[in-house]
Amino acid sequence: MTEVFIAGVGQTPVGELWDISLRDLAVQAIVAARKDAGGLKPDAMYVGNMLAPLLSDQAHLGSLIADHAGLKGIEAAVMEAGGASGGAALRLGYMAVASGEVETALVLGVEKFTDMLGSKVEAAVSTATDSDYESVQGLTPTAQAGLLMRRYMHTYQVPRSAFGGFPINAHINGAANPLAMFHNLISIEAYEKAGTLSDPINLFDAAPMADGAAAVLLTRRELLPKEALLPLVRISGSSMANDRLALHDRPDILEWMAVRLSVERACRQAGIRPQDVDLFELFDAYSIYTALSLEAAGFAERGKGCEMAVDGTISLTGKLPISTFGGLKARGHPGGATGVYQAVEAVLQLHGLAGKNQVSGAKRAMIQCLGGPASTAVTHVLERV
Amino acid sequence: MTEVFIAGVGQTPVGELWDISLRDLAVQAIVAARKDAGGLKPDAMYVGNMLAPLLSDQAHLGSLIADHAGLKGIEAAVMEAGGASGGAALRLGYMAVASGEVETALVLGVEKFTDMLGSKVEAAVSTATDSDYESVQGLTPTAQAGLLMRRYMHTYQVPRSAFGGFPINAHINGAANPLAMFHNLISIEAYEKAGTLSDPINLFDAAPMADGAAAVLLTRRELLPKEALLPLVRISGSSMANDRLALHDRPDILEWMAVRLSVERACRQAGIRPQDVDLFELFDAYSIYTALSLEAAGFAERGKGCEMAVDGTISLTGKLPISTFGGLKARGHPGGATGVYQAVEAVLQLHGLAGKNQVSGAKRAMIQCLGGPASTAVTHVLERV
Repeated sequence: MTEVFIAGVGQTPVGELWDISLRDLAVQAIVAARKDAGGLKPDAMYVGNMLAPLLSDQAHLGSLIADHAGLKGIEAAVMEAGGASGGAALRLGYMAVASGEVETALVLGVEKFTDMLGSKVEAAVSTATDSDYESVQGLTPTAQAGLLMRRYMHTYQVPRSAFGGFPINAHINGAANPLAMFHNLISIEAYEKAGTLSDPINLFDAAPMADGAAAVLLTRRELLPKEALLPLVRISGSSMANDRLALHDRPDILEWMAVRLSVERACRQAGIRPQDVDLFELFDAYSIYTALSLEAAGFAERGKGCEMAVDGTISLTGKLPISTFGGLKARGHPGGATGVYQAVEAVLQLHGLAGKNQVSGAKRAMIQCLGGPASTAVTHVLERV
Repeated sequence: MTEVFIAGVGQTPVGELWDISLRDLAVQAIVAARKDAGGLKPDAMYVGNMLAPLLSDQAHLGSLIADHAGLKGIEAAVMEAGGASGGAALRLGYMAVASGEVETALVLGVEKFTDMLGSKVEAAVSTATDSDYESVQGLTPTAQAGLLMRRYMHTYQVPRSAFGGFPINAHINGAANPLAMFHNLISIEAYEKAGTLSDPINLFDAAPMADGAAAVLLTRRELLPKEALLPLVRISGSSMANDRLALHDRPDILEWMAVRLSVERACRQAGIRPQDVDLFELFDAYSIYTALSLEAAGFAERGKGCEMAVDGTISLTGKLPISTFGGLKARGHPGGATGVYQAVEAVLQLHGLAGKNQVSGAKRAMIQCLGGPASTAVTHVLERV
C-alpha cells in the first residue's frame, strides 16, 4: 500500500474568534498549510466539522470552503463523527491517498462554537449523544461525564482531587503555546475550589468550547515538495472504532472499548506497542476522559490513570507526555477541528519545531480523538522516517 | 489498485414514513443488504446523511446506527456534501476498500425529511446553499433552480413546456417501482397547469422531499460471498468534483463544471466514453437540473437537453434511459440516501433484476448525485464483469 506523508501543516489561534467568519478561519489554516508545503495544491479536501449546520446555518462546507480557498474543481466533502470529526477526516485523507485515488489530500478541521449563546451550543453538542434516549432527558455530554467520573471514583475509590493533575498539566503546556486559548496556570487549590458543572465535574475538568481551524496536507513520497521539512513524517497507523453510543447500553462504562480497539489496530499497523510512542495527544474533553483513555489505550492499569499525573509521567519531560500544546483543556476544543490540531501538534513535535512545548527527541506520536464518551475513537500513529 | 465489487444491496420504500424512526429505517436497509450478501459482515460503515442534526436532533449517526445494527466495534462515520452526501459516502466506501484499509464497507444512505413542518425542512435544506449570501436573502434551492430555469429558457429560447418530458418519464418509471413514493402518471396538460413554486419552477418540476434508506456492501473480489449474484458488478469509475457554491460567483451558471469534471474523471478511470453507458441515474431534483446534467455530462449539446425527453431517448427503451426507477421526482428524494438508492437501482439493472423497470441488456451504468446546483457532483460507473 502507498505510504502517506505529511507535506505541510497550518493552524489558527484557538479561542473566541468573533471577528472572523467560519470560511475565513478555514482559509487561514489552509493558506498556512499550503505555504508550509511549498504551495502544493491538493486535489481533494476533507473537512472535519461537527456543528456548522446547527451553529452557523451552514452545511455543505466542502464546496463552500473549496470555493473560498480558490481550490476550484477539487473533490471536497465533510466528515462528521461527533467530537471525532477531525480524526475521521484525517483517516479519510489517509485512505484517499493510500488508495491512489487522490494525489494530495487537504485535511481541514474547522469549527465556530462561540458565536452562539451557550445554551444553544450545549443543545447542539448534545445531538452527538443518543438524542432519543439521552439528551432528550437532559443527559448532556457534561452530565454523561459526571456519571462516568462518579462511577470511577466509587469503583476505584479515587478522590476527586486525584484528577486535578490533568488540567494542571494541560495549563502548564498551554501557557507555552502562543496559539492556545488559555495561558494561565492553575493550582490544585484552585482546582478543588472550582465551581461544579455536573457533579462531580467542575469547571477545570471540562475543556472550553472554542473556535479554530487547522489543516494538514497528505501526499505520497514522490509528490512531496522539495521544500518539505526533514525529517519526513509519515502516518504509520490509522484506525477508527465505535462503541455503543448510549452509555446505558454498555456492559461496563469504565471500559472504553473503542479506544482499546482503535489503539490495537493502529499499533498493529504501525508495528509497535503503545509504549513505543514518545507522546500521546489524547482527547481530554473532561479529566475523566483522560484517565479512561490512558487506561483503555494500555498506558495505565484500570483505576490507576490519575497516578500518571501525580508522578509526572504525563509532563513534557515525563515518560508519556500528553496534551503537549495544552490539549483540549488549555489549547481549547474547537469541535471538529480538534483532531486536526492534534495532527498539526504531533508533526511540530516530530520536526523538533515545538519550541517551549518540545518533547525532547520525539520520533513517534500517537494522536486520538473521540466522539461522545468514546462512542467513536480515531487513532493515528505518526513517525519520523 | 484493488478492484471494488458490490456484494449486496438493500433499500426501504420511499415516502412519508412517519411510523418508523431514523435508526430503524437505517437498520431495515442494512439488514436487507447483508441478507443479499449472504450475511457478510462489514468492518466499516459510511453514512450519507444531509440533515439529521437539524431535522432529527441527531448527529453522530455513525456510532448510533452501527450500535443499533449490531455492528459492534466497526469503523463508522457520516459524509455530508449537501444532496450529494450519499454519493460521497459511496466514494468513501470505494476508497476505503481500494486502499486495503477496509475489507468490506457498508455504504448507507438515510434521511428523514418529512417528520418536520415544511418550512423547517426548507430552512434546513437551505443550509446547503451559501447561507451568508444566498439563503439569508431568501435564495433557497428552489429559488436558485428558478433562476437557472429562467436563464436557460431565455438563453436558448426554450419554452417551459419543453421540460415536461422529464417528470412525465420519471412518473412512468416510478409507477412500475413498488418502492417509489409516487405511482401516478402525469400528462403534459397536468404539467402545464401545475402550481408555481418559484417561477418558472412548478410543482412537477421539483422532486419531493422524502424519507428512506438504502445500503450497498462493497468488498474486494476474494471476499465476495459464495452467494454473490452473477454476473458480478464492480465500480469501474469513481469521482467527485466541486464548483463554486454560490451561483453568483460562477462565470456561466448554465455550464455545470462539477458535472463535466466528475464525468470526465469517472469515464477516464473506467476507460469509457459517456456514450458507452446503458443508463444514467442522474440527479433530477428539478427538471432544469436534468437538462443541465445531460448537457454537462456530454449527452446533449448545450440548450438541447430537453429534446432527449421529446424524442424518447431517456425512456426505458431509449438510447439513454434515465431515472429508471422514477428518479428523485417519482421514486422520491430522501436527501443523503438518494445517492445510495441510485447505486442500488444501478445494481438491480446490471443484474437483470429490475422487473418492469428493466433496461434490456444493461451492462454499464452511470450514477450521479449533486449537492446544490451542481456545487458538488459525485459520479460513479458500475459495470458487469
